[in-house]
Amino acid sequence: MRGREAAAGPELIPLLDAASEAAATLRDRAVEAVAAKVTVGGKVDTAALEREQRAAHGLAWVATYAEAIAQIASYARRMESEGRFGELESLLAQIGAAEYLSQLFGGVLMSQGEIVRMHELGLSKDQHVAILTEPVVKLILGATPETRARAVELIKATQGTASFGDTGLDETLQAIRDEMRRFSEAEVVPHAQEWHLKDEYVPLELIAQMSELGVFSLTLPEEFGGLGLGKEAMCVVSEELSRGYIGVGSLGTRSEIAEELILNAGTDAQKQEWLPRIASGEVLPTAVFTEPNIGSDLASLTTRAVRDGDVYRLTGQKTWITHAARADLMTVLARTDPKEKGYRGLSMFLAPKPRGTDDNPFPAQGMTGGEIEVLGYRGMKEFDISFDGFAVPAANLLGGVEG
Amino acid sequence: MRGREAAAGPELIPLLDAASEAAATLRDRAVEAVAAKVTVGGKVDTAALEREQRAAHGLAWVATYAEAIAQIASYARRMESEGRFGELESLLAQIGAAEYLSQLFGGVLMSQGEIVRMHELGLSKDQHVAILTEPVVKLILGATPETRARAVELIKATQGTASFGDTGLDETLQAIRDEMRRFSEAEVVPHAQEWHLKDEYVPLELIAQMSELGVFSLTLPEEFGGLGLGKEAMCVVSEELSRGYIGVGSLGTRSEIAEELILNAGTDAQKQEWLPRIASGEVLPTAVFTEPNIGSDLASLTTRAVRDGDVYRLTGQKTWITHAARADLMTVLARTDPKEKGYRGLSMFLAPKPRGTDDNPFPAQGMTGGEIEVLGYRGMKEFDISFDGFAVPAANLLGGVEG
Repeated sequence: MRGREAAAGPELIPLLDAASEAAATLRDRAVEAVAAKVTVGGKVDTAALEREQRAAHGLAWVATYAEAIAQIASYARRMESEGRFGELESLLAQIGAAEYLSQLFGGVLMSQGEIVRMHELGLSKDQHVAILTEPVVKLILGATPETRARAVELIKATQGTASFGDTGLDETLQAIRDEMRRFSEAEVVPHAQEWHLKDEYVPLELIAQMSELGVFSLTLPEEFGGLGLGKEAMCVVSEELSRGYIGVGSLGTRSEIAEELILNAGTDAQKQEWLPRIASGEVLPTAVFTEPNIGSDLASLTTRAVRDGDVYRLTGQKTWITHAARADLMTVLARTDPKEKGYRGLSMFLAPKPRGTDDNPFPAQGMTGGEIEVLGYRGMKEFDISFDGFAVPAANLLGGVEG
Repeated sequence: MRGREAAAGPELIPLLDAASEAAATLRDRAVEAVAAKVTVGGKVDTAALEREQRAAHGLAWVATYAEAIAQIASYARRMESEGRFGELESLLAQIGAAEYLSQLFGGVLMSQGEIVRMHELGLSKDQHVAILTEPVVKLILGATPETRARAVELIKATQGTASFGDTGLDETLQAIRDEMRRFSEAEVVPHAQEWHLKDEYVPLELIAQMSELGVFSLTLPEEFGGLGLGKEAMCVVSEELSRGYIGVGSLGTRSEIAEELILNAGTDAQKQEWLPRIASGEVLPTAVFTEPNIGSDLASLTTRAVRDGDVYRLTGQKTWITHAARADLMTVLARTDPKEKGYRGLSMFLAPKPRGTDDNPFPAQGMTGGEIEVLGYRGMKEFDISFDGFAVPAANLLGGVEG
């Protein structure tokens, strides 16, 4: 492809728009083809979905790629209209779109060793090849080794900055990124290697500083003490803190999970009681979902919660619970209806617990457990937990209704 | 593709033959296309090759895939003629060939995140699409989720055996595999985890047993004390011993490297002196090639060897030298002509050394070094070595000629 000039800047925009349309058409045909495989009388059939899981999994990837291409086109248009679509932005949009389009045509890399091809979703050869419109071919042929080499050259010149190319973030998010990066460089980077080598907790003093910066209240509405930002804020903050240390960057994830659960499903009283305290960092939550043998297939979990007067009593095994010993509040998923085997029989509990220490990680009645030593992702520690009649106030059933 | 029957057994053979031909044609066109990019006046041009390394790298993969498909077809024909081409063999041949063909059409996965497409090698769309002959399409469409599920079912039923499906090995190799597997199960598996956890050497007693079994003399001609087998024997033995412990399975690699170097490039005297002793396990060799910063880009290495009367004196740094402390003989690659920057200025030396201990790994004049602690691939230990005038007899210059 030497000598072929890549489209760049303004001339790239219509190509990206056309490619986005071609990808959306392929996705629509794929939806129809997979629907034909997995539906019976217009409804998704569980047995058919199980049998056709490769096609269904592939469809999820195709839809994601189509959306990614649409977002690249949208980004390019917006950047261009704001005069921010420079050479590097143009190269990244071109190379990214070309790779997604090439995979939609030639096979989508679902994992390191698993490629799904369009015929496996049930597309005909004509439906499949239709994605190779003139603009799509132009984009694919334009992503040459020279294009990539030029992008690498420009990226190298940006060493030391928070990101390369204009990420398209607005001023608020850019300011948050800069602030988090400064914090991470000053307070996290100098200590991260030592925390890792000594397998230590992220210090509480640092968590207090993170609270001050709003790390635990980014997406929460202002009425509950939050900053009312979008999920992009969570991404930006997690990226910059994780650049310093993954254990710091993913600390806020636990608060985000608890807040989202309570905000969307909690009673008013539960929201008032917990959200402001999680947002301020006073309460550190932990997500107690996964169990031995079932991993993240939560519909199969077996920990039981049985009503006993004013409390529910929890019994069962949980594993890979991050930050469990030092947490103040567990969001525990447990089965309240043993007759239901799937999601329907499950309920979520807001279960307070005292903070533990290395010597005594779970100083509470009806609850024992121990640390799982890990090679990486340190700073919060991982735990096995065994519940044996552990009591949670009945008022702490999330949303006040079982199932 | 539900309801479409996969070809199986005898009917698969002509499809595989035709696919092999289609892949060979694609490879031939790719060779021509890449040659057009990297040759000047009929000769490979180094600068052009450097510039077009993605295309050249891709061509290597295409040629390998074409050969793999040819070998699958050859295996299938041979197995069929011997009445050994059962359902599992047929499924594996079908699925393997279909995956290679799909990648040749849609993009070859050169690494986890790098896919090369045919247009990048300079193929026209017609040359590229020509691989989709009728038999190729039939093979690709026949590799359905159902095909794979059936193969997995049959593979599960073979748990505990040395391999699944008929590997096509002859009786000698099959007997060697069985013997090595028994040895590995009896002498390696029970101790492997302990060796790993304690970061211990593979015991010398075990190495003596391996010598008895011929592990260090598999491919060496009989006149030098070897078994005169092909490289397949090395593969089979390495597989079975590595199944027990990777440190045992790759012990023989060092002997194989030294033997191949001496056999192909040594003087008669060097062959007589070293080959029988390496074959018997009396002499443990180590390959001293890699250096800090240059890794395995050996053409760039900087360790020097300077003639000084009856010896060469070595000076320079080597790193990631496996089994170095306990080895008796180093095959050292060093630069004898400092004016030449590439391969031309390099010479190989057969450098004897005393065995070291953990406390004193290199008890020799002009040589120091230390262990590199590793998380895995234990049992032989890894070392940094620093040569400072280390003497090697001039007679030990491999082949007796510099460069």
